[in-house]
Amino acid sequence: MARDPRHDVLFEPLRIGPRTLRNRFYVTPHATNFGTDFPGAEAYYRGMRAEGGWAAVSTGACLVNIDADNPRWNLHHLVDDGDENNLRLLASKVQEHGALAGVELIYYAAGTGLRTRLPARPGVSQVRSYGISECSAPAMTKADIRQIQRQYVDAARRAERAGFDLINVHLREAGSVAYQLLDPYLNTRTDEYGGSFANRVRFAVELFDMVRDAVDDCAIVGGFCIDSADGRIEAAEDGYRFIETIDSYVDLWDLQVGRWIYPDAGPSRSHRQGWQVPYYETVRPAATKPIVGVGRFTDPDVMADLVRTGVLDVIGAARPSISDPFLPAKVDEGRLEDIRECIGCNMCASRVEIPGAFIACTQNATVGEEYRRGWHPEVFTRPADTEAPVLVIGAGPAGLECAVTLGRRGFENVHLVDAGDSLGGIMRWIPRLPGLQEWSRFLDYRVSQLDRLKGVEVILNRKLTADDVLDYGAASVVVATGAAWDPTGVNTYVHRPVPGAAGNDAVYTPDQIMRDDLRFSGLRVVVFDADRYFMGQSIAERIAADGNEVVFVSSEADVQGYLRLTGEAQYQIRRLLDLGVKIVPNSILREVLDGGVELEDRTTGRIDRLGADAVVMVTQRVPDTSLHDALAADPAGLERAGITKLLRIGDCLVPRPIADAAFDGHRVAREFDSPDPGTPQTFIRERRVVGFGDGAFDGGLPPTATRGVRTTLPLVRAQDAGSTDRRHIKKGQEQ
Amino acid sequence: MARDPRHDVLFEPLRIGPRTLRNRFYVTPHATNFGTDFPGAEAYYRGMRAEGGWAAVSTGACLVNIDADNPRWNLHHLVDDGDENNLRLLASKVQEHGALAGVELIYYAAGTGLRTRLPARPGVSQVRSYGISECSAPAMTKADIRQIQRQYVDAARRAERAGFDLINVHLREAGSVAYQLLDPYLNTRTDEYGGSFANRVRFAVELFDMVRDAVDDCAIVGGFCIDSADGRIEAAEDGYRFIETIDSYVDLWDLQVGRWIYPDAGPSRSHRQGWQVPYYETVRPAATKPIVGVGRFTDPDVMADLVRTGVLDVIGAARPSISDPFLPAKVDEGRLEDIRECIGCNMCASRVEIPGAFIACTQNATVGEEYRRGWHPEVFTRPADTEAPVLVIGAGPAGLECAVTLGRRGFENVHLVDAGDSLGGIMRWIPRLPGLQEWSRFLDYRVSQLDRLKGVEVILNRKLTADDVLDYGAASVVVATGAAWDPTGVNTYVHRPVPGAAGNDAVYTPDQIMRDDLRFSGLRVVVFDADRYFMGQSIAERIAADGNEVVFVSSEADVQGYLRLTGEAQYQIRRLLDLGVKIVPNSILREVLDGGVELEDRTTGRIDRLGADAVVMVTQRVPDTSLHDALAADPAGLERAGITKLLRIGDCLVPRPIADAAFDGHRVAREFDSPDPGTPQTFIRERRVVGFGDGAFDGGLPPTATRGVRTTLPLVRAQDAGSTDRRHIKKGQEQ
Repeated sequence: MARDPRHDVLFEPLRIGPRTLRNRFYVTPHATNFGTDFPGAEAYYRGMRAEGGWAAVSTGACLVNIDADNPRWNLHHLVDDGDENNLRLLASKVQEHGALAGVELIYYAAGTGLRTRLPARPGVSQVRSYGISECSAPAMTKADIRQIQRQYVDAARRAERAGFDLINVHLREAGSVAYQLLDPYLNTRTDEYGGSFANRVRFAVELFDMVRDAVDDCAIVGGFCIDSADGRIEAAEDGYRFIETIDSYVDLWDLQVGRWIYPDAGPSRSHRQGWQVPYYETVRPAATKPIVGVGRFTDPDVMADLVRTGVLDVIGAARPSISDPFLPAKVDEGRLEDIRECIGCNMCASRVEIPGAFIACTQNATVGEEYRRGWHPEVFTRPADTEAPVLVIGAGPAGLECAVTLGRRGFENVHLVDAGDSLGGIMRWIPRLPGLQEWSRFLDYRVSQLDRLKGVEVILNRKLTADDVLDYGAASVVVATGAAWDPTGVNTYVHRPVPGAAGNDAVYTPDQIMRDDLRFSGLRVVVFDADRYFMGQSIAERIAADGNEVVFVSSEADVQGYLRLTGEAQYQIRRLLDLGVKIVPNSILREVLDGGVELEDRTTGRIDRLGADAVVMVTQRVPDTSLHDALAADPAGLERAGITKLLRIGDCLVPRPIADAAFDGHRVAREFDSPDPGTPQTFIRERRVVGFGDGAFDGGLPPTATRGVRTTLPLVRAQDAGSTDRRHIKKGQEQ
Repeated sequence: MARDPRHDVLFEPLRIGPRTLRNRFYVTPHATNFGTDFPGAEAYYRGMRAEGGWAAVSTGACLVNIDADNPRWNLHHLVDDGDENNLRLLASKVQEHGALAGVELIYYAAGTGLRTRLPARPGVSQVRSYGISECSAPAMTKADIRQIQRQYVDAARRAERAGFDLINVHLREAGSVAYQLLDPYLNTRTDEYGGSFANRVRFAVELFDMVRDAVDDCAIVGGFCIDSADGRIEAAEDGYRFIETIDSYVDLWDLQVGRWIYPDAGPSRSHRQGWQVPYYETVRPAATKPIVGVGRFTDPDVMADLVRTGVLDVIGAARPSISDPFLPAKVDEGRLEDIRECIGCNMCASRVEIPGAFIACTQNATVGEEYRRGWHPEVFTRPADTEAPVLVIGAGPAGLECAVTLGRRGFENVHLVDAGDSLGGIMRWIPRLPGLQEWSRFLDYRVSQLDRLKGVEVILNRKLTADDVLDYGAASVVVATGAAWDPTGVNTYVHRPVPGAAGNDAVYTPDQIMRDDLRFSGLRVVVFDADRYFMGQSIAERIAADGNEVVFVSSEADVQGYLRLTGEAQYQIRRLLDLGVKIVPNSILREVLDGGVELEDRTTGRIDRLGADAVVMVTQRVPDTSLHDALAADPAGLERAGITKLLRIGDCLVPRPIADAAFDGHRVAREFDSPDPGTPQTFIRERRVVGFGDGAFDGGLPPTATRGVRTTLPLVRAQDAGSTDRRHIKKGQEQ
């Protein structure tokens, strides 16, 4: 197939200062939670996007010092030789695929110092750390300001030495000191760095000037949040002025609206593709340099239009590149139906919001696995025996992903069987919940792949019994029969059924409601949510929108639950409140009564009663293991049937978010050749292994740099022999 | 000085299986959040306790597999050669000081798999992960049970190879699979592993038997929670029976009551030293093997008594060893006044509860710094010039710690000046808050040190002006003038003063109330807490206990705030409720009115009014920088006065928890010789540096082990050249 000529404009190179972008696809900086601590994972993750054809790929936020940390996220650092070494690998992985490598520098103001035990770094004004309120930050002195600017300069020089092409100076997120100085709400300084716009932008002017001056041959990118979406910085006012002021210092602008998930990475339930465009149009006249803009763009027609009409020069993307690193290549090759479009669920962002977890993607199971498991989203190993008959039972997320992956690997004889009349399992109805329509892209992509994978046959309307399976003729059987919401009310806090729930007609579950498209009318409905993700609130919204009186009871003090991590919470809760839903937090459903429920407050123990005509239990799901168990209990039957592999994947193994059920199916398919694909294969664990050759950084560092890793592990520093306060003899080196 | 003969019993050796404890002091396993990822920090932290004289020091919880992770905590792993290597260092650091090295093995049931993307490990029954409710765990099958037991065995063998003396099989925390199986609430199995006590203990019997059999020469320790303190496992019932059943398999018992901070590590406000003793007495008859028991023991008389009377054979300790690793040595040397007693604030535990943060201690600033900063709590470097005159202004936590540390370093000419009539700053009144009396130990220790440090002179009742300082004759001036609670209501969410607050007599601050010992009577008092740690609730408790009607307004949906992390929340909130305090969560104080306040709900935006006679603002503190700023603004004056170093430390630099203010004073004193002690010196950053010699683990691992670190960073695994699905050429190795 060939590229659609309407998309040619996206492949025109663009000069930016001393560099040239090979096309108009640009991966904007975003965090992965790998950062400095997982250099292999970072380098291969970023490299994969370069391989997919993007013109430039950046690091995520890269701190220019170590004092201000926020231990919640694992970000990059570029402070010493060890950091430089690790980021050099990242730059090289990006460049080997012909993309430009960018680094995004940030001084993280009002960080906590929880890891380093050092005082929170100076902030713009005396202000409580928005991260952890036990920490405040003193206002920066002039000396602090100069030191901070020097740290950016040092980091920029290291970045150039490490081989980066683009230095992105970061004014996009709440933590960026330069952005905080611009923000009149945070900046209450009365010196020349506060007050008028000219004062508030002074730091940035000095900074860009110094950074530009410090590097010889890198392009300078201004990463800027043109409108804070909360009234503090507005695109038409300070946003515009900022671009006017700084334009001459940059070679490229990388713009966004709002910050992080509020709502730069706005979820699809509330923010459509390209919602930011009017803001870009507002500031466009202020810029003479090319502009990158984001908007969760997945439609190449939309992209081409934006570039052709000059609204943007370059299409920026984080989430679309997470979902499909090969989007540019696929547009180039005219393979639009192979593009895996971002669904805007923000699973990626939510995992970055969980300390210690790594970026993940509902649409793309290979995210984060490029290095440690060696997975490539477009490259699959052929099985030894392509004819081996495989039966996959259940076409929900796990079964679908498994079958598609087996097909892409080249299995020729895969049957995907589902009892329903269409593919998708729970994905047949989850996208019908209010606001979640774009989640159907998960299904769309896999259906489109199956249409073209000759090796996978889809059989619908077939519910298999254990005997059917034994007679089927498959050598490998993958059971993906899913899970069902539990009507009994068992939940994480109370591991026992709620009295009055079992067998009660007035008690419903989400799948019961959605599968049968049940509609209530004029009822009082209590939704009890101990699940803490989208299901409870989505069901509550649906029922309330139908004109029912809904009480949303949450087990959590903070009812936002996991939706807080995806950035969906504020929009969802606003919907509920607008629909008149009453919210009862921090409560457990104690009993279902006739015509009502009894609740218990988890803190005070107080008991309340609410009248209710119906109750919806959103507490936990129970795997449907009946088919698997029946087969597993009959090893003789399996042997007679020639079934050598019996696996359980997805929710029927353990109920979990869609992204993880899909991952399960993907992994099993990748590792299908092993005698027991149910047992995961090993993967690389990145960490420090003491005493093995990290001595390159021992003693060779300049005294002002933060020391890197040592090989030898000295005890305390050398003691003065004459000290009377010393209790112990000095020890020598060991290892 | 010599040892008190009454304490001799604590120094009698004790044989435990193939090993001998050199005395009766035993550091029980506890987490640091260093774990596998920070092997140097772990090894030196544990080694320091061995050096301090404890007979045995253990790792924290050490996972026997990697699938079940809980990314919140950085725990150890013992799964592959890299882990073995790193823990070998830990064992050797402990043993080089003559202590026995223990490893505490745990299979972490119902972990989340968030880091590995693997399904949550099988749990005892189908149960939601108590960590993150999006994850459930399937019930373990027989095959899972055998696999888990094998993982313990493999880990035990690795531990023996790594040189450990003691293998602690862990049934103490909620995450331990063996404990979950014992717990009739969690274990609803209907096979031979559930139901009767004999069934519920079966896994443990098999496990201990297998582990004992697997090692040749290590002592086996049974780490057991004898009473879950919530009715599920009771010391007199299943606790007793468990010990009877397992006793023959262990060489030593390591017992606790309750779990983690609920309330094994019960805070001092609610749990006195040795509160667990009646439980030990209950189970004592069931054990023929020696027993270690914990109880936040810091008093050697109490310890000696317990051992002499046979209640315990060995004194276990985590927090007392954190606070003073040299406690045994000090008891041995008769230096009881030098013992730094744990204050039971649980700052240590709270930092482990913050992902990415490390263990810290209010009493002992060197915790966690043994490796990366090379700090030894009993060893200090002499300064080049012992006579250099140093003036420390302010004897709060930072100033005290600074002066004491300078004195211990051998500075001969330190003046510690305070405007008050006694030492302590805020520590003069914080321990007068309800329940916080034991926090006065922070002051007691430093006062006792100052009494004997000839080089530090204490001057009270002296408030210095800038001129006084210039005339003082010091060459170095350390300003530690603290911070004051802000009456204007500025807080983390609203960076502007609350209308109606400033200059309002009816608005109070905590320090105002406590310094002047203000007592209200018969008033309606609103306490607005946006601080989220102890101050707001403690002040509310005090005022309510005096018979006032108190409304506690918290900015947080979860009012427990930081107290949740220290384990104090449930006791504090219960106190407030018992005193009739009304709790209003998730609200901001909008305005102080005549006779009341206006509140706004942060989620719904709803406005409410409350009547109030007085308001207490607990929102933030403002540094008292006036003295420092006056001096810093007069460089000519400083030069004339011969003042070459002017520093600001503690709360007057940035308000923060006591532990961190004290750390600041400590660090500055340790690094006082540098030209600018205000700028922290470098320290070791432990992390992986790519490509430097971690190749020892490349390719040499057995196929069943989880692979360790690789040197070369391969791309995807070898591709079959004939694959038609492949889009890209296979790449070779690099680096």
